[in-house]
Amino acid sequence: MILRIALAQFDFPVGAVAKNAERIAAMIAEARDAHGADVVLFPELALSGYPPEDLLLRPSFLADCQAAIETIAAQATGIVAVVGWPQAAGAVVYNAASVLRDGAVAATYRKRELPNYAVFDERRYFDVDPDRETCTFEVNGVPLGLIICEDLWFPEPLAQTVQAGAQLVLVPNASPFERDKHAQRDALLAQRVSETGAALAYINVVGGQDALVFDGASVLADGDGFIHPAARAFEEHWLLADYDPASRKFAPVAWPYENDEGRDALAWRAVVRGTRDYCRKNGFDKVWLGLSGGIDSALVLAIAVDALGAGNVNAVRMPSRYTAGLSNDLAAEQCAALGVRLLELPIEKPFQGYLDALAETFAGKPVDTTEENLQSRTRGALLMALSNKFGGLLLTTGNKSEYAVGYATIYGDMCGGYAPIKDLYKTEVFALARWRNTVAGAPVIPEAVIARSPSAELRENQKDQDSLPPYDVLDAILLRHVDQEQSRDEIVAAGFDAATVDKVLRLVRISEWKRHQAAPGPKVSRRAFGRERRYPITNGYSG
Amino acid sequence: MILRIALAQFDFPVGAVAKNAERIAAMIAEARDAHGADVVLFPELALSGYPPEDLLLRPSFLADCQAAIETIAAQATGIVAVVGWPQAAGAVVYNAASVLRDGAVAATYRKRELPNYAVFDERRYFDVDPDRETCTFEVNGVPLGLIICEDLWFPEPLAQTVQAGAQLVLVPNASPFERDKHAQRDALLAQRVSETGAALAYINVVGGQDALVFDGASVLADGDGFIHPAARAFEEHWLLADYDPASRKFAPVAWPYENDEGRDALAWRAVVRGTRDYCRKNGFDKVWLGLSGGIDSALVLAIAVDALGAGNVNAVRMPSRYTAGLSNDLAAEQCAALGVRLLELPIEKPFQGYLDALAETFAGKPVDTTEENLQSRTRGALLMALSNKFGGLLLTTGNKSEYAVGYATIYGDMCGGYAPIKDLYKTEVFALARWRNTVAGAPVIPEAVIARSPSAELRENQKDQDSLPPYDVLDAILLRHVDQEQSRDEIVAAGFDAATVDKVLRLVRISEWKRHQAAPGPKVSRRAFGRERRYPITNGYSG
Repeated sequence: MILRIALAQFDFPVGAVAKNAERIAAMIAEARDAHGADVVLFPELALSGYPPEDLLLRPSFLADCQAAIETIAAQATGIVAVVGWPQAAGAVVYNAASVLRDGAVAATYRKRELPNYAVFDERRYFDVDPDRETCTFEVNGVPLGLIICEDLWFPEPLAQTVQAGAQLVLVPNASPFERDKHAQRDALLAQRVSETGAALAYINVVGGQDALVFDGASVLADGDGFIHPAARAFEEHWLLADYDPASRKFAPVAWPYENDEGRDALAWRAVVRGTRDYCRKNGFDKVWLGLSGGIDSALVLAIAVDALGAGNVNAVRMPSRYTAGLSNDLAAEQCAALGVRLLELPIEKPFQGYLDALAETFAGKPVDTTEENLQSRTRGALLMALSNKFGGLLLTTGNKSEYAVGYATIYGDMCGGYAPIKDLYKTEVFALARWRNTVAGAPVIPEAVIARSPSAELRENQKDQDSLPPYDVLDAILLRHVDQEQSRDEIVAAGFDAATVDKVLRLVRISEWKRHQAAPGPKVSRRAFGRERRYPITNGYSG
Repeated sequence: MILRIALAQFDFPVGAVAKNAERIAAMIAEARDAHGADVVLFPELALSGYPPEDLLLRPSFLADCQAAIETIAAQATGIVAVVGWPQAAGAVVYNAASVLRDGAVAATYRKRELPNYAVFDERRYFDVDPDRETCTFEVNGVPLGLIICEDLWFPEPLAQTVQAGAQLVLVPNASPFERDKHAQRDALLAQRVSETGAALAYINVVGGQDALVFDGASVLADGDGFIHPAARAFEEHWLLADYDPASRKFAPVAWPYENDEGRDALAWRAVVRGTRDYCRKNGFDKVWLGLSGGIDSALVLAIAVDALGAGNVNAVRMPSRYTAGLSNDLAAEQCAALGVRLLELPIEKPFQGYLDALAETFAGKPVDTTEENLQSRTRGALLMALSNKFGGLLLTTGNKSEYAVGYATIYGDMCGGYAPIKDLYKTEVFALARWRNTVAGAPVIPEAVIARSPSAELRENQKDQDSLPPYDVLDAILLRHVDQEQSRDEIVAAGFDAATVDKVLRLVRISEWKRHQAAPGPKVSRRAFGRERRYPITNGYSG
């Protein structure tokens, strides 16, 4: 007899316990009534959303989760539901998943391996039950098991669950997107199956949450090690999996799956989904951004349009005495191509107001980056004024290279609530722009924007490369230093100019204070600034 | 025979491995040669500074620490030195302290209890050695033991160290200041002594590190449970402790000690030290701040003067069309009293420039907080321009009540690198101002500043209480909600108006994005915003 499992690859927003509970209960009924499922499987901590962070320190939050799981359980009849939730037990809290059946909580598994690295802080909140009990249960005669996310990355939890009798193990996850992680994940699944012979149903949550984007991409592994195609990432689906206990194999999946469009496609969908969800979950239906005629804001405009639709995106051109005519033309050209409204607000009057207010105080002092920053801050204040007056979220357009070396004006172009390309180096920004122009019909970013030399246009004839090494060199150094933790000496030994390396590493160090005051943006890389890379501002280390 | 221990209550900056190593080696010699010590005891992770955060993920950083401890050990002769450092061993890292003698590392203790709550993230970095070995060693026939910081908060590590033979146990710490913690700490020491009979020498580091201020306040406990007066907090000292193994008691301490000046005095010294160290360690010898004539900036000015000296503090008065004459007068009065230079920069020209630039776009729209924010942002940009042009750090003057409910303009009055009163509620700001005026001669804050009603002066006749509940009510609600994790229902049940509670809690929730972009400031309370209270921005929970 075939066992039908419905995997709920959906978005369960953080903190929204009441709404999530209502939705989970309705989905359990839908899985049973509309999909004919025997088992319905929800992601890790679906009830609370992931990661709930310090909400987990609120007694009322934990009590609400407890009450909600009981309410859901009471409605779980005629089907077996597996729901992830934070379970308080006296003074400790477990990252739990409960088996709900016949209107009650039939069993609860407590996660054993608590990740506390990279973006994860689970040991801040959760305990490991010293009993480390496995969780197995039968549905229609098929012995099932249950482990959670990180448990799969260690051999013991699965091996012990199989030893306890399970032949098919359910694995709820909350695993954020990171480039090139899918292949690693699939290799892991294959290895665990080869160790145990168990089939696996792996469900991952989907959706943006502050600096993280969960990609879903749920997957099945047969007992013989065959890995089915992962469900299409960043999208919400019901995934139906028909498991045959005799062969220990799933029927070929009928779901929309990833068909290897390449890493740029995945990165694009990650930042689009992250941007859309940040807006939607925080109550913004429209966005603002400054459009300079350069590559960064052009890419963010294209992302915003894909995320929210052209009608919800407002671009603002803010020329100064130093803005090239070409910049204005390219901004207009892109808006026309995308159907985005373009507003023009010259910065001359407030900028001149600043110069006048400061004239006496600055008398005799040479012009320097102070005046450049004032232009950027004037633009930031104008954009915030538009957001304040008309509503809508301001997107900030800095890339990872800029955040790394501080080539951005704090309280100026860093103004904004969300930073869509924060975790993409400049060279990746170019690559993604080129890639985006190859898909979905007409190019969305003018070729001239991609072709021209990057410039902040804050003084005459300024080019980024006047004060920074060429971006291919800069990004290569940054990738080694930031993403790969290489030392100054290692990078120099790899063939980079020592003076350039020293300069770049110094810039990274002295820009930490700016990054601490930066808006969140979606993690794409293996080492994103923000909650993943946590450096002291005050830092005497330069190695 | 008396055993002399020199406790090095000094500041060991984070990341400065080479400098710290040099200084530790020199201090070992000084303890031996100038102080006649048999043992010299340094704080937890003195070599790397505390907390090194993700520097601990850099292989080069760990290798540098290993090399440095060996260099220090080679110079440790004629004395026994105990030095805290991060010890890498293969793929794991320990929070270690080594016993250096006869020119070598004689023994190394590995911390067993790793705090991973509140401001601590030790399980992100460190492992517990599964052997959980105790560390005991003899000096001049006296059996000593060694445990580290959090180990003392659990009974086993000390009990097992005493069981292994120690009669005097050394305890290096890195314990950040928090109001009312000293009494709790001393009670803990007394309890541990009563459980074991061991005498304790407790050394804590001193100095500001981003959002933390370590207070020192090192202390000795005799074997009979007597707790000696703690060394004066927030100051660097050599603390000499003469231990008599026969009586298991220390000689009465001859060091400058805390004589109960009260909790306001300690809080004051915490924020002054935090401000001074942030500036000094980040290379700033002077600061800027906007002086409005209100209580917050007045208090920050007094803090800055105590931290850096009047000659290094630059106050800026930035009147607008809405600024009361009294505000200008009070700003001038305070600067005159403190000997601080006061610069005046009216904001009218750039503010009008913004209004002109936006006139067409805003046509027909009523004036609202947009225009208020523009004034605040004009001030922020002017202050940043001064900092950019002349050097010096901009201090931002927001208090905890404002950060909590978002009663602050992001990219406006929130501009700045450090926020001295970030962790003081408005009612605490008033209390501290009154207290400061009672000490050290003449009042430093004009009484009229303390007496007047708080106003942002961003429109005619504006008062904070127009849009917020009275500060005593607001702060009482915030204390329950933020510091004590009480739910909405609990706060209402305690007698607060339900509509007010709902409004305040909503403001706290929707201001999270601003706090994520806020400057660091010194932790004073038990639950400081920032690294101690980590909330999601995107958050559907309102309980």
